[in-house]
Amino acid sequence: MNHIHQYCVFSALMQGFSSDGATVSDILSKCNHGLGTVCNMNGEIVIIDGEAYHFTPDDKLHKLAPTDRMPMIVATDFQPTMTKSLDTLRMDALKDALHPYFPAKQNNFIAVRLDASFKRIVYRIGGPQLRPKESLLELAKRQTVKSYENISGTLFGFYSPPYTNGLCVAGFHLHFLSDDRRAGGHILDFEAEQVVLKAAVNTHLHLEFPQSEEFNEELILPELAKDLHLAE
Amino acid sequence: MNHIHQYCVFSALMQGFSSDGATVSDILSKCNHGLGTVCNMNGEIVIIDGEAYHFTPDDKLHKLAPTDRMPMIVATDFQPTMTKSLDTLRMDALKDALHPYFPAKQNNFIAVRLDASFKRIVYRIGGPQLRPKESLLELAKRQTVKSYENISGTLFGFYSPPYTNGLCVAGFHLHFLSDDRRAGGHILDFEAEQVVLKAAVNTHLHLEFPQSEEFNEELILPELAKDLHLAE
Repeated sequence: MNHIHQYCVFSALMQGFSSDGATVSDILSKCNHGLGTVCNMNGEIVIIDGEAYHFTPDDKLHKLAPTDRMPMIVATDFQPTMTKSLDTLRMDALKDALHPYFPAKQNNFIAVRLDASFKRIVYRIGGPQLRPKESLLELAKRQTVKSYENISGTLFGFYSPPYTNGLCVAGFHLHFLSDDRRAGGHILDFEAEQVVLKAAVNTHLHLEFPQSEEFNEELILPELAKDLHLAE
Repeated sequence: MNHIHQYCVFSALMQGFSSDGATVSDILSKCNHGLGTVCNMNGEIVIIDGEAYHFTPDDKLHKLAPTDRMPMIVATDFQPTMTKSLDTLRMDALKDALHPYFPAKQNNFIAVRLDASFKRIVYRIGGPQLRPKESLLELAKRQTVKSYENISGTLFGFYSPPYTNGLCVAGFHLHFLSDDRRAGGHILDFEAEQVVLKAAVNTHLHLEFPQSEEFNEELILPELAKDLHLAE
């Protein structure tokens, strides 16, 4: 319960790896919440309540087939152990709102779900790669940034402790899905009202590593992790 | 098959975390080979053929009880997919001997077992901590280095790719067990003859994170990883 299942590592995306991946059916058989991307990094995936949603940079929702592959997916069988109602919450206050998890659980992973009415929400939809092996950093330079005012929806994602950066993304990494299923992506900022905040500590991280030639073509460099915050 | 099961991360040992841990019975129910340490880092553990051996710095073998806890353990259900016989092998040639795994599998984990007659073997037995939270680096400064000539035995351990350093130990991390069960520890160097080298790629890494107050007392710093090669 509340284990994290992850395919691939973020440093590999920094080197442009985005072929191959875990299948949608494999992840949904074990997990009900998560986030990730599709092959060629063509957009963002968010999994909420056992359904996987895929948004492309043109802001369109696409259906994923059970056999579709996700070259990066971080997902969990989310069973919240903490629930709080808050009148308002801004992204920069999320860590404080998760009291008493910080610093009591600062070296652990924490899964976070937030249902709210968003006074303002800013998110991006990355990709696609314009050539094979194009880096996540290159994609970030031309990312599509979207924003909405007064939209209700759900955020889901993880807090990953700093020492895991590279395999994971240090800090909060959250994806969005609007209640009307018309909008979704990678959260850059938000200002929320009527918030229900749910969270759980993740005791296990199950990592699956790609075995392909492409994954092993170039040595993944540890120093790539330091720029991950610019792209994720 | 050939999944890695790991309790805790090496950067936490750098900050002196060594209480709590996975039980011997839990690990042996899933794994037949591995390496690790005991609470207070009092020596080295090597698991070979489903048996766990614990050597203290006085060079003595101790029996582990099924309920004993290992604050760091990296283990696998080792099923070799490559076997080679070699007349001689030195530690600095191990990577080449694992051809064609390098560079074909350079971003993957590789489990390695080596049965041989050792013309010379140098190993260390670390610990114990002289005070709670004493760092692995401090322990390394007073480590007991042992060496033998003409002793037969088994080495087991893992190659971890560079981008995993901190959670794991980048490069080769091998522990030793002599055939007569009188010697064992963490390998620093070897020169082997009549070598049988077995290996397997590990497709999954299952990490379990401590949940204790001690584990979360101080934020684990990513930069600790850079000195890990001095201590492991």
